[in-house]
Amino acid sequence: MVFKVTILGSNSAIPTLKRNPTAQLVNHNERLFLIDCAEGTQMQLRKYHIRMQRIQHIFISHLHGDHFFGLIGLISTMHLLGRNKELHIYGPSALQQILQIQLQASQTELVYPLTFHAIDPNEYAVVYEDDKLTISTIPLNHRIPTCGFIFKENPGKRKLRKEAIEKINIPVHEFINIKNGADYTDITGRLFKNEELTQEPNEPRSYAYCSDTSFYEPIIPIVRNVSALYHEATFLHDKAHVAAEKFHTTALQAATIAKIANVGKLIIGHFSTRYDDATLLLDEAINVFPNTILALDGKEIEIE
Amino acid sequence: MVFKVTILGSNSAIPTLKRNPTAQLVNHNERLFLIDCAEGTQMQLRKYHIRMQRIQHIFISHLHGDHFFGLIGLISTMHLLGRNKELHIYGPSALQQILQIQLQASQTELVYPLTFHAIDPNEYAVVYEDDKLTISTIPLNHRIPTCGFIFKENPGKRKLRKEAIEKINIPVHEFINIKNGADYTDITGRLFKNEELTQEPNEPRSYAYCSDTSFYEPIIPIVRNVSALYHEATFLHDKAHVAAEKFHTTALQAATIAKIANVGKLIIGHFSTRYDDATLLLDEAINVFPNTILALDGKEIEIE
Repeated sequence: MVFKVTILGSNSAIPTLKRNPTAQLVNHNERLFLIDCAEGTQMQLRKYHIRMQRIQHIFISHLHGDHFFGLIGLISTMHLLGRNKELHIYGPSALQQILQIQLQASQTELVYPLTFHAIDPNEYAVVYEDDKLTISTIPLNHRIPTCGFIFKENPGKRKLRKEAIEKINIPVHEFINIKNGADYTDITGRLFKNEELTQEPNEPRSYAYCSDTSFYEPIIPIVRNVSALYHEATFLHDKAHVAAEKFHTTALQAATIAKIANVGKLIIGHFSTRYDDATLLLDEAINVFPNTILALDGKEIEIE
Repeated sequence: MVFKVTILGSNSAIPTLKRNPTAQLVNHNERLFLIDCAEGTQMQLRKYHIRMQRIQHIFISHLHGDHFFGLIGLISTMHLLGRNKELHIYGPSALQQILQIQLQASQTELVYPLTFHAIDPNEYAVVYEDDKLTISTIPLNHRIPTCGFIFKENPGKRKLRKEAIEKINIPVHEFINIKNGADYTDITGRLFKNEELTQEPNEPRSYAYCSDTSFYEPIIPIVRNVSALYHEATFLHDKAHVAAEKFHTTALQAATIAKIANVGKLIIGHFSTRYDDATLLLDEAINVFPNTILALDGKEIEIE
């Protein structure tokens, strides 16, 4: 089952010719989720051949422009291209009015249903659930109310042991009960315990997205053991005082969070424009947490 | 004295990878004016090496997203880059609230003064004036209130005839009076009529920007004889019914306006995404008005 993240923007604050500001696309089981939506995100989707109409849920972490100024344009383009599928937007409550006032000004009646879900960035709470995935907010510590999002696969059902199933010749309609943990008795009355018929399900995978925030240890219990953690790393650690002042994080601090939280992989992004070459930030992070990679525009990252 | 237009976007409605939606930069006498500001305009400014902090006046024709969704991002970037020069924005009154509500949401107190000038798109009125240039609105006919803008050089002073000035040995401090039309009497009491000393000033140049609009003849008296007319040409004329329905213009109609109004040059733009190759539109316009050019992203056009 596919679970991957495409980076649509990796710069902080302002767009440059090499790096757009923040947006990411999460593909889980061919359902597309957009996280944040800086100006230019719709062009990035086009550039990286992602069909925007397939996106059904958009999550906005906070109302700094480099995380949402592209949302109204994306919504409008979906409208102009004749979308009919419902779109769900999750974000701070003020966002709803910002969108409405702009749609009103252009006298636009969207041709598709749009549902706005106000989220409380200060709460750790489930905001989305389907049969395979649960998404919750992660309260962060930034200049304005901000949250991250954690995507967790739901625990799967037990997996059938093919050889046992074939040997006993179990009818197909019994599979679902057995996957759910039931034992099986055949027509002769012989009992097979569930453990003989099944094995443990795959380990659920998870992806945590944390942007923007100061170095903030309260997130650690939430992101502990995730398969991959995206954490902002706006500055090198020699600018730790600037990072603290602006409620941002250094690469060293992001790596420290990853290490303490024992995550599988660290992805750093939201680089200050001062770093033309983001490998400086990577080098700093790797010293603390070796399995770190850069969130560069266009990069696809498998969640394993 | 420089007078040129740089096209920053030429597509209608939505951005494509080749054409951004509408924005244009007018440089008159090294003063920079921005007309419209679609999403991505700040990236276009960067791409075409235009220093955004030099822009002091921004004119928004109407509140369809493809003409203003990039404004809040541009304003924010100017702020983040530490602008201190005043910025003036001219647009429909609802725009002010759209900007304010977004600045409030991000708790942004701009570090530079921003003055908003509400304009009435239904009125032909002067909205800007300096010693060399006057800018007026041009009421257009679109789905929502929309105006164009006409940039007219103020009539210049008369030009000194170098050879006469030198022969008579007129002191420099007299030049300004003579340029203003005064005669000159030398120390011997001899009178020189102004016509002997000066010649006609350069013909004032003018640039009219008309987007978006249906085919709308009331603009003709306003744009008559302009040096260059930008007129939208969203469709080919075989789609004249679609153009009319959507309050847009065909290439043939734009050329017809140019011909009747006897303009120096026609620039067409705001091309429907259906035309991957805009030369189809050019060919149609040229049949009616030969001195037509395409407004393609990045093109610089001298106003002569």
